[in-house]
Amino acid sequence: MLFKVSMTVRLPHTMPAAEADRLKATERAIAQELQRSGKWRHLWRVAGRYANVSIFDVAGNAELHDLLLTLPLFPYMDIEVEALCRHPSSIHDDDR
Amino acid sequence: MLFKVSMTVRLPHTMPAAEADRLKATERAIAQELQRSGKWRHLWRVAGRYANVSIFDVAGNAELHDLLLTLPLFPYMDIEVEALCRHPSSIHDDDR
Amino acid sequence: MLFKVSMTVRLPHTMPAAEADRLKATERAIAQELQRSGKWRHLWRVAGRYANVSIFDVAGNAELHDLLLTLPLFPYMDIEVEALCRHPSSIHDDDR
Amino acid sequence: MLFKVSMTVRLPHTMPAAEADRLKATERAIAQELQRSGKWRHLWRVAGRYANVSIFDVAGNAELHDLLLTLPLFPYMDIEVEALCRHPSSIHDDDR
Amino acid sequence: MLFKVSMTVRLPHTMPAAEADRLKATERAIAQELQRSGKWRHLWRVAGRYANVSIFDVAGNAELHDLLLTLPLFPYMDIEVEALCRHPSSIHDDDR
Amino acid sequence: MLFKVSMTVRLPHTMPAAEADRLKATERAIAQELQRSGKWRHLWRVAGRYANVSIFDVAGNAELHDLLLTLPLFPYMDIEVEALCRHPSSIHDDDR
Amino acid sequence: MLFKVSMTVRLPHTMPAAEADRLKATERAIAQELQRSGKWRHLWRVAGRYANVSIFDVAGNAELHDLLLTLPLFPYMDIEVEALCRHPSSIHDDDR
Amino acid sequence: MLFKVSMTVRLPHTMPAAEADRLKATERAIAQELQRSGKWRHLWRVAGRYANVSIFDVAGNAELHDLLLTLPLFPYMDIEVEALCRHPSSIHDDDR
Amino acid sequence: MLFKVSMTVRLPHTMPAAEADRLKATERAIAQELQRSGKWRHLWRVAGRYANVSIFDVAGNAELHDLLLTLPLFPYMDIEVEALCRHPSSIHDDDR
Amino acid sequence: MLFKVSMTVRLPHTMPAAEADRLKATERAIAQELQRSGKWRHLWRVAGRYANVSIFDVAGNAELHDLLLTLPLFPYMDIEVEALCRHPSSIHDDDR
Repeated sequence: MLFKVSMTVRLPHTMPAAEADRLKATERAIAQELQRSGKWRHLWRVAGRYANVSIFDVAGNAELHDLLLTLPLFPYMDIEVEALCRHPSSIHDDDR
Repeated sequence: MLFKVSMTVRLPHTMPAAEADRLKATERAIAQELQRSGKWRHLWRVAGRYANVSIFDVAGNAELHDLLLTLPLFPYMDIEVEALCRHPSSIHDDDR
Repeated sequence: MLFKVSMTVRLPHTMPAAEADRLKATERAIAQELQRSGKWRHLWRVAGRYANVSIFDVAGNAELHDLLLTLPLFPYMDIEVEALCRHPSSIHDDDR
Repeated sequence: MLFKVSMTVRLPHTMPAAEADRLKATERAIAQELQRSGKWRHLWRVAGRYANVSIFDVAGNAELHDLLLTLPLFPYMDIEVEALCRHPSSIHDDDR
Repeated sequence: MLFKVSMTVRLPHTMPAAEADRLKATERAIAQELQRSGKWRHLWRVAGRYANVSIFDVAGNAELHDLLLTLPLFPYMDIEVEALCRHPSSIHDDDR
Repeated sequence: MLFKVSMTVRLPHTMPAAEADRLKATERAIAQELQRSGKWRHLWRVAGRYANVSIFDVAGNAELHDLLLTLPLFPYMDIEVEALCRHPSSIHDDDR
Repeated sequence: MLFKVSMTVRLPHTMPAAEADRLKATERAIAQELQRSGKWRHLWRVAGRYANVSIFDVAGNAELHDLLLTLPLFPYMDIEVEALCRHPSSIHDDDR
Repeated sequence: MLFKVSMTVRLPHTMPAAEADRLKATERAIAQELQRSGKWRHLWRVAGRYANVSIFDVAGNAELHDLLLTLPLFPYMDIEVEALCRHPSSIHDDDR
Repeated sequence: MLFKVSMTVRLPHTMPAAEADRLKATERAIAQELQRSGKWRHLWRVAGRYANVSIFDVAGNAELHDLLLTLPLFPYMDIEVEALCRHPSSIHDDDR
Repeated sequence: MLFKVSMTVRLPHTMPAAEADRLKATERAIAQELQRSGKWRHLWRVAGRYANVSIFDVAGNAELHDLLLTLPLFPYMDIEVEALCRHPSSIHDDDR
């Protein structure tokens, strides 16, 4: 089941650079693991902003929530979720 | 070059059903042709709304605009465009 | 899988009363059938507005979309969907 | 009398983890007690956000306010209240 | 139980003057009857707009909704409802 | 002359409890004095929020501003003012 | 007593030109009469929009409302009212 | 050339009172000097808010910007600028 | 003096194609004449929308307004104006 | 390929003046270098605000993002990007 997830990161300016770097490194590792697992299907940077547009492919709402909660940047992100479904005009098998 | 395009369709309630059907059939044919050409990379329905989330892969802003203009539903759609680029944490080759 | 769906109905003032009545009667019949099936778990009127707050319990995004599309008032509604999941503090078994 | 209450929690990033944990534990205890009493009829997590959608069943506006004030996270929440009433198409006795 | 209700009237410009006059006359009669009954506690015009701010004193959400539905201008109004309760600093007995 | 004033209080989480208590006690005393004087005609709590809806009856815009400035919570409030006038359908003498 | 009033005119595209011209001519005559009376203190066009920014100097909210109601374009305008008062740093006697 | 400028002041609650007082005193002195020069034509307080509505009469956009930059409260203000021009219905010579 | 002007065109769907074509042809002719005169310095299409971003170089607010009023699509456009001035970091002589 | 980029700078009031000055000096040097390279085609100050309107001419979304990331004020800016393309009515060769 697919969801479009838009994440905008707002790190406090007072966060020490070392802590920010550590958070980002962990975030990156988890994001790549989730991509390898097929759960995080697409991940794009929004040009000009510290934000991404993502497509998740999960078993349901609960799994989506649990995955997002594992992200170390979760407390610093504005997250918008849109439930997607197959478009009748899509010809791509994996746009399920 | 990738763009996320969100389209919300607002057909006037006064449009005759036959005209709406004709517009939608043409829209569908063009959308599928653009998908086959690789320009319209992904197309999803937003659950509960007459709207889609799409990913376009085009040569640039001008080609994106020209493609969208060919859609017969263009005059009836609210369209939002976000320029995307490769995310440094993406592991998918085609998330270019 | 649960979704909160907020529907606001905006019938055109030009719609003949008989057509509006017919649409509403069909809407009501379908809504009640969906409630009996367990798909439409809760349905409340928002005080002072021609709008409802609903909870759907469906297999996934696609089923939610397909059900909403069967509603005859669908073309006249603003619909907002929020994906829900079990709250860790909930004690109600059916708040799944 | 039913109310839909949407709560979004925004804990300051400067709050010590121990204090946050203590607040959340107390919040959870009170939330469960209110659920057992029947006042807090439903409690769902919004997927991807530190937020919930809730249904309260109380004697009136004053009781709703007093209950929400007892929540230790109240000062850190954006709260939206919508007064609900029975929908003429509802078939559920407890959607009163 | 008190509610603040804000109503903004948007009559279609195509409505014949006679129909508008008839609707307004009925609206006025009902509004005055509801005021006499004590249900519609206060009614003020917003300066410079075809809108009012009102205070209703009703048994609950359902009665509020039923009363508003009886207004002939209901289909032409944007209505916002806010549930009120006694303020701990109020000294007015009837700000209940 | 009547004004509807909506006040939402946002105390900084860093304010010591003693200072907050002192501000609130003074606020309460001034609010009650203004109510006794007839200037602050109505004062209601908005259910579920640290906010009030108020009706002021003052000589004019300047007096309204001067009164609000005397409130110790003024620097911590979002305030919205709407100028009201008698509604032609009002039957209450004091809805002047 | 001063008010800033912002008016945006939205004439329906279906209004016959002759009717629009007649409305505008009457509007102009009334606006100029109100300026001569001193009630409509300032009137400026917003560059690039069919809108104005105005300053009214009236006895109170009721007079402001009554004056605006006499404008033939009133039903076609979005109107925003802000109550003004003398600024402590103003040196202009007529910024009362 | 005229501009309507709306300024809302948001001083940080952490600013020491002495610094705030000093900033306000300088602001007041500069504002009055600009009024004497004829550049700051009107200055009104918005009732109930720490905000003003102003009319500037300057040689152009650049002068407007340079004047606003000289205000010591500039870093703490939300500023909205609207370019004004003579209204065809204005009868006031100085509404140029 | 420079202004950024954003124009979004919303032609009524009921406008006959011939009338729309005539309006657009006249609009184009006037737009090109204004560009040749140097008043309309830049004109870009916004990708995916019937909208443009423009830079005008005019004597002042009044000339800007008068030029925009000559556009036959003016009644069908949402127009936003931002007054620009030279940026201290600009190295382009014509970014005056 | 052209993009309109709107940047609004929000420096924290707690940033020491020396750090702000250093950031601004570096920002200015980079902005001028990018202008000399032809990538940052236009740069204007928005009158009355610490904000700019810019036109970038880059190879694509990725280059735009990479350039903006090099700005030392990037973490303190709200940035909006609009993809532009040649307008069919433009007569300027460099409005490409």
